[in-house]
Parts: sequence; C-alpha cells; structure tokens
Amino acid sequence: MNYRCGNTNIWIKRDDTLDFAFGGNKVRIYEYLAGVILNSGSSKVVTYGSVFSNYLRVTAAVCANLNVSCDLIVLDEHDNVTEQKMGISKQKPRGGGNATLLNFYDANIIHCQLANAHNFIDEYQKKLKMQGINFLWIPGGGHLPEGSFGYVDAAFEIQKQLKNENIKIDAVFLPCGTGTTQAGLIYGFKNTDVKVIGVTVSRNIKRCKSEIDSMLETMKLIDHTENTDIHFNYDVIQGEDIRYGYVNEAISNTMYRIANIDGIFLDPIYNAKAFNGMEKYLESHNDFENVLYINTGGEPNLFMEERK
Amino acid sequence: MNYRCGNTNIWIKRDDTLDFAFGGNKVRIYEYLAGVILNSGSSKVVTYGSVFSNYLRVTAAVCANLNVSCDLIVLDEHDNVTEQKMGISKQKPRGGGNATLLNFYDANIIHCQLANAHNFIDEYQKKLKMQGINFLWIPGGGHLPEGSFGYVDAAFEIQKQLKNENIKIDAVFLPCGTGTTQAGLIYGFKNTDVKVIGVTVSRNIKRCKSEIDSMLETMKLIDHTENTDIHFNYDVIQGEDIRYGYVNEAISNTMYRIANIDGIFLDPIYNAKAFNGMEKYLESHNDFENVLYINTGGEPNLFMEERK
Repeated sequence: MNYRCGNTNIWIKRDDTLDFAFGGNKVRIYEYLAGVILNSGSSKVVTYGSVFSNYLRVTAAVCANLNVSCDLIVLDEHDNVTEQKMGISKQKPRGGGNATLLNFYDANIIHCQLANAHNFIDEYQKKLKMQGINFLWIPGGGHLPEGSFGYVDAAFEIQKQLKNENIKIDAVFLPCGTGTTQAGLIYGFKNTDVKVIGVTVSRNIKRCKSEIDSMLETMKLIDHTENTDIHFNYDVIQGEDIRYGYVNEAISNTMYRIANIDGIFLDPIYNAKAFNGMEKYLESHNDFENVLYINTGGEPNLFMEERK
Repeated sequence: MNYRCGNTNIWIKRDDTLDFAFGGNKVRIYEYLAGVILNSGSSKVVTYGSVFSNYLRVTAAVCANLNVSCDLIVLDEHDNVTEQKMGISKQKPRGGGNATLLNFYDANIIHCQLANAHNFIDEYQKKLKMQGINFLWIPGGGHLPEGSFGYVDAAFEIQKQLKNENIKIDAVFLPCGTGTTQAGLIYGFKNTDVKVIGVTVSRNIKRCKSEIDSMLETMKLIDHTENTDIHFNYDVIQGEDIRYGYVNEAISNTMYRIANIDGIFLDPIYNAKAFNGMEKYLESHNDFENVLYINTGGEPNLFMEERK
C-alpha cells in the first residue's frame, strides 16, 4: 500500500507477514543461518538477546525445526535502568511479547543481568566447552555476514516486484539495529541509484555505519568480489530515540496513526521509531518521489507489558 | 506445509498470515461486510464481542480504514466465571491480546457485564436511535450471510491452489464458533466430494449445525439458487472443551507441539482447540488420505494475560 508524505509516495514491503514464526527480518536472515547451523554439525546453538528480541524468537523456532537444541541467554536489565524505560501507555518497563512466545518453544531460556552479560556469556561458553558439548555460538541479532545475504535476496525480490509494478524508487528506509539487515539490502542494491537509509533505533550513527562497512567488506570476501569496483549507496540517520526499547509519544502516535489507515502494525521498538524518523527526514527533503519502507516485523512487541 | 496423523496428510491453509490487521478469518468476512457498511450509508457501526474477539479487532481496523466511526461493546465476564477460566500457564483469567490492540484504534470501546449484555445492547441501540444517529448494527462475530461469502471465495482459492499443487483432499477442518466461516466454506465446496468439518469451540454440535443450516438457506436466497438442487457435504464434531476461552492441557500441548515443528502458531481459543479435535478424529477414522486444516488466525490471543 502507499502513503503520502509531502511530495513523496511511501510504499511498504510487508516482511512482517512472512509466514514463519511471526515473520519479520530475522526469518530472512535465518534462511542462511540455518545453513550455517547445519554445516557446523553442532548439536546446540548458543546465543543471546534482549527481552524484546525478535531474533531469539526466530532462533528458537528455527532450532526446533532443525531439531537442534538451543540455549538462549536473555538479558534482564538493571532495575534502575528499566525503571526509566518508557512503555506505550504507562511509561514503565514491560515483559510479554516475544518473551511470552519463547516459552512456547523447547529452547532453554537462561536469564542474565545486562550489566554482567559479558562475563556471564564467557563463563557460560567455558562451562559448555568443559562439558565437551559441541555448540555453535551466534552473535546477538544473528549478526553474521551469512545472515545478511538473506537481505541480498530480499533486495532482488524487491527490484523484481517494483519492475512488475512499474514503480521506480529513490530510496529504501528501514530500522537500523545491528546493521545485519541494512548491510544485506545495501549489498543487494549495489551499483543502483537506490539509496538504502537506516534509521537508528539503538546505537549512534557512527557505530551503525562502522558495523555496516565492516559487514559489507566481509560480504565482498564471501561473494568473491573483494577486488571488484562496487558502488554502495547508503546512509544512516538519527531515530527519535536511540535508547533501545524507549518509546516516546511521537513513536506511539506514529504506531496508532498507521494502524488506523491500512491495518498495518508497526512495532514500537523498531518500526514505529524508524517510520517516524523516515517521515521527519522526508518532511525536510523534497527530492524523493517514491520510497519503500521495509516493515521488518516485531509485532509481538505490541503486547509487551509492565514487568511484574 | 504438511503433517502426518496416522495415515492422513494434514495440509495447512495460512489464513493467519493475511496481511490486514493481524489477519485471520474475519479479514475475509469483512471483504464483504465492508460493502455492507458502505451500502448502508451509516456514519457509525455498532457491534459487540468478547475480550478475546478477533472480530472486534478487524472491525476496528476496517472502520478506521473506511473512515466510519465504530462503537465496540466488549463483554466482560462475571468475576466468578472468569475465576474458573483457565489460562495457558496459570489457570487464571486473562486480558491482553486482542484487547490490547483495540486500544490502538480510533474505535469507541464500551465495556459491559456479560450477564447484562442483552439489556445493555438493547438500551445502547435505543439511546443512539433517540439521538438520531444513523448506525449499522452488526451481530457478534460478523454473523451475516454476506460475510460468509468471503469464505466462498476462500473455497474457490483453495480449490485452485490444490489443483495447481495436484493435491486431492478428502476434507477441510476448521474451528466452528458462530458458523459464519464454516457456512461459507461449505457453500464454496458445494457439489464436491470434500467434506467441510467444523470442530466446536464454544457451542454444542446441535446449535452449530442449526446456525450453519440457517445461514446456508439464506446464502442460497442471496445467490438466487434457492430452487436449485445443491449438495452440501459437512459435519460438526465435538472440540476438546466447548466452553469458550477455556484452555486445558491437551489444547496447550497441541499449541506448543505445532509451534515447535514449523513455526506455525495456533491460537489457544480457536485453532489449538480445533486442531486437537481434528487429530483425535483422524486417529479414530482412517478413511482420509489428505485433509486441509484452515488456520483461521487469532494469534493476538497468544498474548493474553491474567487480568489485573
């Protein structure tokens, strides 16, 4: 469907409706990471994520599907940090959402304090090694270059769909968290006029760009194009609030507004924040005629609640 | 995707992933009810449903999309009834889920005690009439024959898909609540060998059949086929627990088991109950080679919580 913002048409790519385990970008990333798991020959996957993590939900579903055991380390934040975290309605910290869905899976859920995460994760891996368990460690968010290739495919799919619909876009917008998804899209749109613009949801622009550049270099190596002249066209812009999980009134209002137009839900942690950032950008830049927004999913986080 | 149960292959139709407002069967029903609203020329829709209602969620989204105001009467149950209602984990009454999503819409939410619903709804309509408001009353669940035609279309779509995949099915299974969805499917599969089997989730078999038969007669009138010899092939079988919203261990286990196979979530109120009923039926009936299960959605109810 399309919306207007100033002189720009906004089209939406509905990766939120991918049909595996509540969909979203992590499903495309796991199309490749599933291969990494199988190739590793490991009997167990170990990884971590926040209480909002879409990635952990999809990891649990993929491991169950592949019949591989998985240990998910869920980072609980300090009380004094979560006390400041704002909810949609009550300005308070919440659980629920993806955390609820994790309970449906055969995954082992291990809770750990955020402040102590680094040590805890190190010790956890050491313990498994000492037990002689052959496990695969995956960084948070599935932040591996193999995963990004899921979004190279997505970029090709998008280009095909746009061609079929006879639409020429100037830019693609999406939330930028770890940069795994954006790097894949940038790689897929290489050597085109389409600019891939990430809106920060949890890190500053410099950190996001650095992660993305590093990912792109590795992808060139994997793709055997490291000596080829490739043109990448991308940017990262500032989101409404880069404190991960913080939802303010502007973000909530974006979510409500879009829900009332076309039955599209933008999750509060990633997409309402990024959609809002895109609209602000478009209001001050009149040079785009058509842009595509990628709804990367995460709707379970619409059901987050206050923590008990 | 397909599962095995005894000698039967189970295929799943993913109406849970329809891309409007969290999808599900009510989206197809509203493809026709939206026309009813527009044709009525009313400035307001008034209807009611339970706290679990997928129908109210889609009603709110459709009315927002059509720019028609809507008053949604949500039935709150007596405390002594909800006390007995069993949750997935804690055997206690819960809100959340669809109720949470209703808050995102511009709809007017009116709470009413279940025991007093009949009077309340009567009085509410009288009040609007006295105020000279031109509103359209829609029965709970969108139980209008026009709505059922959404599932006549679905039946045609299914027949086309099965033909393309070269699969011959013996039966279609789905949850039977008000019968609106099942009546549409039965009508769409008329004069075929495919049996459309509903699994009760809230009413006894006799009541379900009576509603369906009445709906089918009206559909024949609308379709100008009342004097034609039409063969309907259907049945309604007993679900695990026909108390609406009650979830026992067998139902929860079905939900967990399916989530761990293919990343498919069955909601606890309708689909986990009906899928479980179908499996029980297939275990004692060996005469089906291929059946199709319709996942009618309702995933927001995975996020129901204890009421405060």
